[in-house]
Amino acid sequence: VTADRRSERVRCERLDRDDPLATVRERFLLPEGVVYLAGNSLGALPRAVPGRLAAVATEEWGKGLVGGWERWMSLPEETGDKIARLIGAGDGEVVVIDSTTIALVKILTAAVRARPGRRVVLTSTTNFPSDLYAASGVARLLGDVEVRTVEPLGIPEALDESVAALLLTHVDFRTGELFDMPVLTKAAHSVGALAVWDLCHSAGAVIVDCEAAGVDLAVGCGYKYLNGGPGAPAFAYVRRDLQPLVENPMPGWLGHASPFDFDVVFRTAGGIRGFATSTPAILGLSALDSALDAFDGLTIEAIRQKSVSLTELFIALLEERQLAGLQLASPRPSSQRGSQVSLRHAEGYGVIEALLARRVVGDFRPPDLCRFGFSPLYVRHVDVYDAVEQLEAVIESKEYLDERFGRRRKVT
Amino acid sequence: VTADRRSERVRCERLDRDDPLATVRERFLLPEGVVYLAGNSLGALPRAVPGRLAAVATEEWGKGLVGGWERWMSLPEETGDKIARLIGAGDGEVVVIDSTTIALVKILTAAVRARPGRRVVLTSTTNFPSDLYAASGVARLLGDVEVRTVEPLGIPEALDESVAALLLTHVDFRTGELFDMPVLTKAAHSVGALAVWDLCHSAGAVIVDCEAAGVDLAVGCGYKYLNGGPGAPAFAYVRRDLQPLVENPMPGWLGHASPFDFDVVFRTAGGIRGFATSTPAILGLSALDSALDAFDGLTIEAIRQKSVSLTELFIALLEERQLAGLQLASPRPSSQRGSQVSLRHAEGYGVIEALLARRVVGDFRPPDLCRFGFSPLYVRHVDVYDAVEQLEAVIESKEYLDERFGRRRKVT
Repeated sequence: VTADRRSERVRCERLDRDDPLATVRERFLLPEGVVYLAGNSLGALPRAVPGRLAAVATEEWGKGLVGGWERWMSLPEETGDKIARLIGAGDGEVVVIDSTTIALVKILTAAVRARPGRRVVLTSTTNFPSDLYAASGVARLLGDVEVRTVEPLGIPEALDESVAALLLTHVDFRTGELFDMPVLTKAAHSVGALAVWDLCHSAGAVIVDCEAAGVDLAVGCGYKYLNGGPGAPAFAYVRRDLQPLVENPMPGWLGHASPFDFDVVFRTAGGIRGFATSTPAILGLSALDSALDAFDGLTIEAIRQKSVSLTELFIALLEERQLAGLQLASPRPSSQRGSQVSLRHAEGYGVIEALLARRVVGDFRPPDLCRFGFSPLYVRHVDVYDAVEQLEAVIESKEYLDERFGRRRKVT
Repeated sequence: VTADRRSERVRCERLDRDDPLATVRERFLLPEGVVYLAGNSLGALPRAVPGRLAAVATEEWGKGLVGGWERWMSLPEETGDKIARLIGAGDGEVVVIDSTTIALVKILTAAVRARPGRRVVLTSTTNFPSDLYAASGVARLLGDVEVRTVEPLGIPEALDESVAALLLTHVDFRTGELFDMPVLTKAAHSVGALAVWDLCHSAGAVIVDCEAAGVDLAVGCGYKYLNGGPGAPAFAYVRRDLQPLVENPMPGWLGHASPFDFDVVFRTAGGIRGFATSTPAILGLSALDSALDAFDGLTIEAIRQKSVSLTELFIALLEERQLAGLQLASPRPSSQRGSQVSLRHAEGYGVIEALLARRVVGDFRPPDLCRFGFSPLYVRHVDVYDAVEQLEAVIESKEYLDERFGRRRKVT
């Protein structure tokens, strides 16, 4: 380690000391010695969650038994309200339900139905594949609906009056590219289409302001930057003034105006509650609800600032080192980037596996992408430094060719 | 307490001593002094679950982080295989997914699509309301599909060649009436319709033999007699030979043949896995998986025998007492009854609330039904006796009129 390198790490330590979010890391339980840069895939464990889970299981369920529902019935909206604060939405505009793809099927179906006569869902070829599958499922269910996919840059031009809904993911899961939500939402509105956003890769790490951008409907994931745990329930956002005009295509008892009357005829509870269908997943929902308390007292602006500081540092350190065969796959200007940096490498799979053996956790996406997520609540500047050091060691040693790190598929 | 009554309770104690399932109660954590007869709504907490939840949170998620998916990816089918043993299905025929109503939307849509040209879903007026909502949602999504509801006795006659799917709940949630699954399935098949069963109120407490009955598709609930916890994920059953012929209408990454390739084009994993859509809810799924171990070593025949013994005892004790204003709403022959007994009382809501104050937990369903579920894994014969004693006290004292027990809606 040269003196330069030592002073670089000292500079990172100083950045951490001066970081207004530095103590937030203590709200998480992270394994010792691991640099965790896959929080864009599965967020780390908030310290409060195991206790909350134990209380829900042994007290609320075990002792409260069926009486637990007096506490649990309102949780989908209560937790939704916590998420609302992170995405520029108001109370009563977000509900926690289902899984992301199911929530998207509901929201997208509702959007297309709200624009009768228009038979196109416009989306990007780069959208998250499960979103594309969901859109094709919706198109087939509704019949005579076309899913039109175009390159991201072609979206404004492809918007016309046949488009019922523009469906985009705010941050590209491959490259970390941040779409311009206000501009694209406005473009959709200019042709009378609804703007439906997938916030999976942005909520909790990027500034999302649904109200300011005029977003119509949105869905998002509970287990990435929101740290709700594996398979945490999803969330759905419907702008308040739109709520009376759109309808949950999968009505169920939880969205009924009087769920305990057990009417044979469905009457919607209205509002965002109408998008709830079935009994909420209380264990996962409680974990997410508890996890969201890790955001207490933080502004999304401060979170974004930390996130930019981390991704800028990562890119700058890599630019200094000029490692062989590694190319930046993310936008260089931070304003166009989410909280993730992707690097291309022909042996990307081996690179990620070799890093994992060195206790730096990123992930691989075919064909050649090494992804690194910088969850601003618990990743430190020294983690960024240490990750780059290990990455340099992997590249220089060509460890990625080692048979220990062969092409067994790695999971998200 | 008369000598007769004392000897009655002694007889119940003896039944418990001789009960081959007596020790199974120890597999649950039940609050002291509570007689819990609402396990048909929310099953009690299995003793192993809090430990499993803690391990999933702190070890698998907290320490394993994103690597946890190596363990979690196969859980939807592994847990499904455990359920398969309780419903007469084989390995690879059951998957744990979504919530019951969402799973039903998928399964029913798949069924109707598998019978092109047929445009009727036939169901019972007495079906669980959320199932009726789901059916109406499916009808509207598919377009030009009619949901035809008839009284239960009218079902055989209403079956004709316009019917794509017969949708029934195996045990009526109001009365506990057990539908004749083999006969009705055969009747559906005789007109070329598919038989879709909702097993929410039967799986784990009633003999269900999907294979012997020739059931085509089914869904069920994880949190009633399976004790998976509040909002546990649901399960879906598709008979093996039908699996290549039906399709999940909501394709998602989890049901993709190569989920980690992130192909823009969906290719189904096939089999029962194809019905999975989105990231599984690992906390709830793990709790359910652990809860199902409470069935280890038990046959469904022994479980059913215990269940019949409990419901017969409850009814017999009530028949002896002839309590004013209470009428049996469940079928008298045990062969026509699930693991639940319902009683009608004009002040049923007050009756249930007064019982609750006496630590006997049943539940109320409008307009006048008092429901008592007898979960055979943990309810004892002495619990049945004690419940009847308390019920008698409530009825004789007319406590149900007490203003403490007013008509505030009780939740499930």
